[in-house]
Amino acid sequence: MTAMAKMKEIEALTPQIKKILAYYEGASSATKANLARILMHGKLGGTGKLVILPVDQGFEHGPARSFAKNPAAYDPHYHYQLAIDAGLSAYAAPLGFLEAGVETFKGEMPTILKINSANSLFPKAAAPDQACTGSVKDAVRMGCAAVGFTIYPGSSQSYDMMEEVADMAREAKDAGLAVVIWSYPRGADLSKEGETAIDVTAYAAHIAALLGAHIIKVKPPTAHIEQAEAKKVYESEKIDVSTATARFRHITQACFNGRRIVVFSGGVAKGEADILEEAKAIRDGGGNGSIIGRNTFQRPRDEALKLLDSIIKVYKA
Amino acid sequence: MTAMAKMKEIEALTPQIKKILAYYEGASSATKANLARILMHGKLGGTGKLVILPVDQGFEHGPARSFAKNPAAYDPHYHYQLAIDAGLSAYAAPLGFLEAGVETFKGEMPTILKINSANSLFPKAAAPDQACTGSVKDAVRMGCAAVGFTIYPGSSQSYDMMEEVADMAREAKDAGLAVVIWSYPRGADLSKEGETAIDVTAYAAHIAALLGAHIIKVKPPTAHIEQAEAKKVYESEKIDVSTATARFRHITQACFNGRRIVVFSGGVAKGEADILEEAKAIRDGGGNGSIIGRNTFQRPRDEALKLLDSIIKVYKA
Amino acid sequence: MTAMAKMKEIEALTPQIKKILAYYEGASSATKANLARILMHGKLGGTGKLVILPVDQGFEHGPARSFAKNPAAYDPHYHYQLAIDAGLSAYAAPLGFLEAGVETFKGEMPTILKINSANSLFPKAAAPDQACTGSVKDAVRMGCAAVGFTIYPGSSQSYDMMEEVADMAREAKDAGLAVVIWSYPRGADLSKEGETAIDVTAYAAHIAALLGAHIIKVKPPTAHIEQAEAKKVYESEKIDVSTATARFRHITQACFNGRRIVVFSGGVAKGEADILEEAKAIRDGGGNGSIIGRNTFQRPRDEALKLLDSIIKVYKA
Amino acid sequence: MTAMAKMKEIEALTPQIKKILAYYEGASSATKANLARILMHGKLGGTGKLVILPVDQGFEHGPARSFAKNPAAYDPHYHYQLAIDAGLSAYAAPLGFLEAGVETFKGEMPTILKINSANSLFPKAAAPDQACTGSVKDAVRMGCAAVGFTIYPGSSQSYDMMEEVADMAREAKDAGLAVVIWSYPRGADLSKEGETAIDVTAYAAHIAALLGAHIIKVKPPTAHIEQAEAKKVYESEKIDVSTATARFRHITQACFNGRRIVVFSGGVAKGEADILEEAKAIRDGGGNGSIIGRNTFQRPRDEALKLLDSIIKVYKA
Amino acid sequence: MTAMAKMKEIEALTPQIKKILAYYEGASSATKANLARILMHGKLGGTGKLVILPVDQGFEHGPARSFAKNPAAYDPHYHYQLAIDAGLSAYAAPLGFLEAGVETFKGEMPTILKINSANSLFPKAAAPDQACTGSVKDAVRMGCAAVGFTIYPGSSQSYDMMEEVADMAREAKDAGLAVVIWSYPRGADLSKEGETAIDVTAYAAHIAALLGAHIIKVKPPTAHIEQAEAKKVYESEKIDVSTATARFRHITQACFNGRRIVVFSGGVAKGEADILEEAKAIRDGGGNGSIIGRNTFQRPRDEALKLLDSIIKVYKA
Repeated sequence: MTAMAKMKEIEALTPQIKKILAYYEGASSATKANLARILMHGKLGGTGKLVILPVDQGFEHGPARSFAKNPAAYDPHYHYQLAIDAGLSAYAAPLGFLEAGVETFKGEMPTILKINSANSLFPKAAAPDQACTGSVKDAVRMGCAAVGFTIYPGSSQSYDMMEEVADMAREAKDAGLAVVIWSYPRGADLSKEGETAIDVTAYAAHIAALLGAHIIKVKPPTAHIEQAEAKKVYESEKIDVSTATARFRHITQACFNGRRIVVFSGGVAKGEADILEEAKAIRDGGGNGSIIGRNTFQRPRDEALKLLDSIIKVYKA
Repeated sequence: MTAMAKMKEIEALTPQIKKILAYYEGASSATKANLARILMHGKLGGTGKLVILPVDQGFEHGPARSFAKNPAAYDPHYHYQLAIDAGLSAYAAPLGFLEAGVETFKGEMPTILKINSANSLFPKAAAPDQACTGSVKDAVRMGCAAVGFTIYPGSSQSYDMMEEVADMAREAKDAGLAVVIWSYPRGADLSKEGETAIDVTAYAAHIAALLGAHIIKVKPPTAHIEQAEAKKVYESEKIDVSTATARFRHITQACFNGRRIVVFSGGVAKGEADILEEAKAIRDGGGNGSIIGRNTFQRPRDEALKLLDSIIKVYKA
Repeated sequence: MTAMAKMKEIEALTPQIKKILAYYEGASSATKANLARILMHGKLGGTGKLVILPVDQGFEHGPARSFAKNPAAYDPHYHYQLAIDAGLSAYAAPLGFLEAGVETFKGEMPTILKINSANSLFPKAAAPDQACTGSVKDAVRMGCAAVGFTIYPGSSQSYDMMEEVADMAREAKDAGLAVVIWSYPRGADLSKEGETAIDVTAYAAHIAALLGAHIIKVKPPTAHIEQAEAKKVYESEKIDVSTATARFRHITQACFNGRRIVVFSGGVAKGEADILEEAKAIRDGGGNGSIIGRNTFQRPRDEALKLLDSIIKVYKA
Repeated sequence: MTAMAKMKEIEALTPQIKKILAYYEGASSATKANLARILMHGKLGGTGKLVILPVDQGFEHGPARSFAKNPAAYDPHYHYQLAIDAGLSAYAAPLGFLEAGVETFKGEMPTILKINSANSLFPKAAAPDQACTGSVKDAVRMGCAAVGFTIYPGSSQSYDMMEEVADMAREAKDAGLAVVIWSYPRGADLSKEGETAIDVTAYAAHIAALLGAHIIKVKPPTAHIEQAEAKKVYESEKIDVSTATARFRHITQACFNGRRIVVFSGGVAKGEADILEEAKAIRDGGGNGSIIGRNTFQRPRDEALKLLDSIIKVYKA
Repeated sequence: MTAMAKMKEIEALTPQIKKILAYYEGASSATKANLARILMHGKLGGTGKLVILPVDQGFEHGPARSFAKNPAAYDPHYHYQLAIDAGLSAYAAPLGFLEAGVETFKGEMPTILKINSANSLFPKAAAPDQACTGSVKDAVRMGCAAVGFTIYPGSSQSYDMMEEVADMAREAKDAGLAVVIWSYPRGADLSKEGETAIDVTAYAAHIAALLGAHIIKVKPPTAHIEQAEAKKVYESEKIDVSTATARFRHITQACFNGRRIVVFSGGVAKGEADILEEAKAIRDGGGNGSIIGRNTFQRPRDEALKLLDSIIKVYKA
C-alpha cells in the first residue's frame, strides 16, 4: 500500500485534480502542491474525493472516552498505521499526538496539524472557545501538508477565534501549507438542534470559505431551519432540504458553488449502514468526502479497515 | 467594456478627478494613484462620481438569505463579471470571495478587500463588533486598489474597532492603498431609529473622515434627530433636514465640507423607482455615489445590469 | 503675519524661552527645538506665554454641534487659517482634520497631532476612555511639533490610558517631538463638581507632569475640594483657593513648581468678558496660557480674531 | 556522589534510556540530550526512573508554611545540596530560588526552571491561574536542562494558560530544552474530590502529552470518577481503577501508552510508609517516578536523605 | 559630602559589600556594579546598610497632600538635594520627577526609576493595580542604578502585575540595572489589618525574592497573623513574632535567609522617636535599612536632615 501510494505521488495530476486546484485562484504554487499531496494520496487519490482520519477525540473528550473501547488506540502510532493501511487521504491530530510518530511515519502519509483544541473539563458556562496548542512552525517542522483550526460561529468568542485563525491561516499560506477549517456553530443564540440546522450549517461553511479555507469541514446538516430570517428565504425560494442529498448539495453551493472542497464529519458513533448511507448522500450531493474518527478507531482494527474500504468504494462509485 | 475600461486607465485624469485628488493632502502619490484607479474606472470614470458593488452579504446574513433569490450569485465569479459588465467603479468583498476570482479577473476591475466582517450567528446581546478576516498584505498580494473596514460608532467595542482600523489604515497607506470606511452607528445608547438619524449619520461620517478614510460609506439618513444636545443645535441653527437632498448635503458638510468622497448604501432591498430617486437626491446633495449590493445581485442579471445603468445615468446627468 | 512669524523663527531665543527650555532637563535637543518652535511662534513668540487652537470638537461632540453656528468651520482649512491669522502659538487637531491641510499650510504654523479622541456616541455607562486614531509616525510624516493625548484620571480605564500614553510619549520623544497631555479627571468615584475641583485638578496636572508631559492642559479649577483626605490638608495648611488667580497659582505649583508649561482650556462657550477675565487670572497665577477652541471657531471669523487678539494682549501685558 | 554523578554523565546511555529517548520522535537532538542529562543523573541514572525535588512551596503557600518546620530550608542552597546529596535526578524551582545558587552549584545537578507560579494570597473567588515569573531565556542563561509549567485544566483561564505554555514550550524546544508540565485540574465544574478523580487525572495527563510535554506531572489519582460521560465508559469497558497500581497503569496509558514520562507528586505531607507504598504502586503501574517536595524538605535533613534513599531503592527494585 | 561620596566610589569594596554581592549569584557584573553603586554611596556606603529616599507620594496621594506641609518640596530639585545633603544611599522617583533634575544632578547620587505608580483618583471598587509610566529605556537614558516596581500580592490583578514586573525586570537586568520590588499585599481576601500581618508580609517579601528582586521593600509587619493555614504553622512551630526585632528577623528569613537585601518603609507620618525605634529594630533583626519618604520631605529641611542623620547613626551603630 505504502509503495503504491508513493508511486501515485509521482504520477501526473488527474484532470479532476487539476480542475479543483484551478479553483484556488489565490493560492501559491506551494499551497496547491500541498493540496495535491492530499488529493493524490491513498485509494481515492486523483478522484477529487477524500477520506481523512482525525484524532482529536482525546483532547475533546478525554483518553478513556476515546480509546478504552479499543485500547490499542491509546498509542499514537496506531492511528498513523490505520490511516496508511486504510489508504486514506490524510491524517489529522494535535501537536503531541502527531509528533509521537513523526519520525517513524515520515513521508508515508499527508498529515494535518490540528492547531487548536477544546476539552470537556472547561466550564460549561464559559463561552465556547479553543486553545491554540500548535503552530504553523510546528507544522512546517513536521512536514505537514496542512494545518487545521476549529471555529465556533455563534460563540461570543467567535470573532476572536476568527481573527486568530485568519492570522495563522495567512502564516500557513506564506509557508506553502493548505488550510482546513472545522466550522462548528454553537453559542448563546443557537438551540442545540440549531447547531446542525441546514441554514446554520450552510452559513458556517460559507464563513469558513470566506475566511480563506481550502478544505471546509462541517457536520451533516438536518432539515431543521434555525433562524427566522433564514426560514423566510428557504420557504419563499423553495430551497430543497428534504433529503440528505439535497442538503449536502445546498452546502456545496454555500462553499462558493463547489469551488471549495467540503467534507463532512461522522459525528457520534453509529452503525455501518448509516455511515455508508451518509457517504452516498454526500457523494450524490456533490460533497468531497468524509472525515471520520471515532467511528473507525473505536472499532477493532479489522472492522475499521473494512468499514473504511466500504466508504472509499462509495466515493469511488 | 473591459477594453474600453482599460483605455480609460491610460487617459489623462480629468479636471474633476484632479480636484478631488488635491483634497487628499496627506496621501502619498501611490495612494492617490489607487484612488485615481477607482475614480477613472468604468462608466463614471473621470466624473468624480462612483458606483461600487459590495458583496459581503454572505458574511453578514448567510449564503441563502444573500444568494438563493438568484442562485448564480453563489459563485464568486458572478459578482466580478457583474461589476465589469455594468461598468462599475470598483468591487468590494471579503478575503475568500475576492480570492476566488483573483486570477481570472486580474486587472479587469479595481477591487477593495473588505478586511473586517460581522455575522448574524453572533449573539445579539454582545456588543456590536466585527472580526478582521483579511489583511493589508492580502490586499497587496491580490492587487487591490483599496481596503475597507466597518466601524460601529456607539458600540462599547467602538474604541477598539477604531484603533484596529487606524492601525490597519496606516499600514494600507504605507502600502500605497486607499482606505474605505463603512461607518454604521449602533450601540447601547442608540435607538433603532437613531442608527440612521441625520445627526448620528453626520457624526458617523465625520468620525470616518477624522480617522483618515479616503472614501466614506454611510446609510442614507432620515430626518430623525437622535441626540438631545444635537437637536438643540439643529433647531437653533435651522439646519435643513427636511428633504433627502438637504440631508445628503448636510452629510457632505460633515465630510470636511466636501473634501472627502462619501457614498451611500442602498440598505434593504427595494424598488427600482426608489433607488433611482435616492441616487438623484445623493447627486443633488453633492454626494459622490452609491454602493449597492443586494439590490443588484438579488435581481436577475439582466435586470441588475439595467438598473445599474439607470443609476449611472443619474450620476452622469 | 506668516512672513513675520517666519522671521521670528530665525530670531535668537529670548531669555524667557531659554529659561523654560532649561527646565526640561531630560529632553533631547530635538524635542527642545520643537518646544521652541511653539514658544517662539506667533504674536506671543518669545514671551513664554501660549495660545493654542484645538479643534477636536467634531470628534468629541459631532460636526453640527461644533460647526453649524459658523458653517465655514466645517472646512479643515478654516482652522489652519484662523490660527495663522490670529498669530497663535500652535494648532492641534486629530489625524483627518490635520491631514486635510497639511500640504497647503506646510511650515506656516506649529501643529500638534491629537492622537486619541472620544466621542458622544459612546455608551454613557462604559468607563471613560478614548481611541488612539493617530500615531507618532503620522505626526512625524506631517511635520508636527508635538503630539497630544487625553488621559482621564479617575476612570477605571485610566491605568491603561496612562500606559498607552507613556508608551507613545516615549516614542514621540525618540522622534524629537514634544508631548502635550490633556488631563481630565472623571470616573466612578468623582462627582460632576469634583471633575474641576481644585484638589482634583491639581492632582490631574501633577500626574500629567509625572508622566513626562512637556505641556499640560487642564480645566480652570473651581474652589470646590472633592477628596476628604485632601480637604484636611487644604484646610490645615491654609492653601488659598479663594480666587481664580490663587487657584491657577496652586496648579502651577503642582506642575513641578513652575518647571512645566501649563495651559488652561476655556471649557463651555461663554462671553468675551469672562474669557478675558480668566486669561488675566491665568497670567497673574503664573499659568502659561490658554487653549481655546469652541469659543473661537463658533464665533464669526472677525469676532474670533478680535477675541484672540484681546486674549493675546492680556498675556503680553 | 557528585563525582560519581559526573562520571555517569560521560557513561554511554543505557538501553532503557535509548528506548525512552526514541519515543520523543519530534524532539531535537539538543532536547533529547537534555532529557538524557536528567535520565542519566543521580542514583537512578540510566534506569528510566526519576525522582525530582521541586521547591515551589514558598511561592504556593508562603515561606513559613513551607520552611518553618525545618528552618535551614529558608536558604536556597539547602535544596540544591539536598538534591545533590540524595542523588536525585533533577531539582526544580522558580526563578529567584534557582538563581540564588546558580553559581555555587553550576554543573552539579540538572535543574528545571519552574516558569509560572500561583500563590495563596490570590483571591479564592478568581478563576485559577498562575503568573509567568521566569522565561526560557532565564533557563538558558542558568544552564537548566528543562523548563516547567503548571496548567489548570478546568479553569476558565485554562485556554489562556495552555496557549501561554504552548508558546513558551515551543521557545524552550527551539533552545534545546526539555519541557515538564504540571497538570492540575481545578475549576468551576469540578468538585474538590474530582480534582484527583481517576478520569480527570488521566484526562489532565493526556492534555499535557498533547501539548507536547516531555515529562508529565500529575497527582496520584483516587478511584473516584467525576464526569458522568466518563463514568459510563469506565463502567462499560470495565477499566480497572480499584487499586493504586491499576490507576497508575491507566495514567501511563493516557500518556500515549507509555511513550511519555510521567511522574507523580506526593501531595500533602504524610508518613514514610505511605510514601513508599505509593512509590511501589507507581513503579508497578509503569509510572516513571516521583516528584517530592514538602515530604522531604520539611523533614530534618538526615531523615529526608534516608527517605529519599528508600524511595530510590523502591524504583531500583 | 558630594566630594566625599565620589571619593568613596573609587574606594575598594568593603568585605561586607563583597559578601552581599556574592549572594546575587545570577546577576551580571554590570548589575552587581550598579548594586555596588548604591551600597557604596552616602554615609552608609560600605556598611551593607541603606537609607533610600522615595518620592512617589505626589503620584500616590496628590501634590497638596504630599508637599503642602513643606512647599519647597513641590520642586523636584528639592528632593535630589535633600538626598545628596543627607548622604543617603539612593533616590527613587517616577519618570517626570526624576527627569526634572537629571541634568543638574547627574552623577551626584544613585537614582532608582520607579516604573509603575497608582493614584488616589482611581476607583476604590476596582482591583488594586498600577500603571507603568516609565521604562527600562528611560532608566538607562537617565543613568539610573536601578528600576523599581510595586506589586500587590492578593489583588486579582496581581498575576498580571507580576508578569509585567518579571518582563521588565528581565529587560532591566539585560541592561545591567538592579531591580527593586515594593511588595504591598492588598486585595479581596485580605483584611486591612492583614495587609501588614507578619505572615502576609513575610509571604510578600518571599514572592518579591522569587521574582528576582535584588532589593525588596515591604512595610514593617505587625504581630497579627492573617491566614488560618499560616496561623497553625506560626503556632505549632512557635515562630517568634512578639517583638518588632523578631518580626524583622523573620522577614529576613523569608528573603532567602538573608541572601536578599530587604528595606522597610516608614509608612504614615510619625514622630522621630518612633522612627528611630523602628530603625533599631530593623537593624537588630538583620534588615538592611529604611526607605523613608513622607517622614522626611514633609518636615522642614533642617529637621529632615537631622532625622536622617539620626537614622543613619542607628544603622552605623
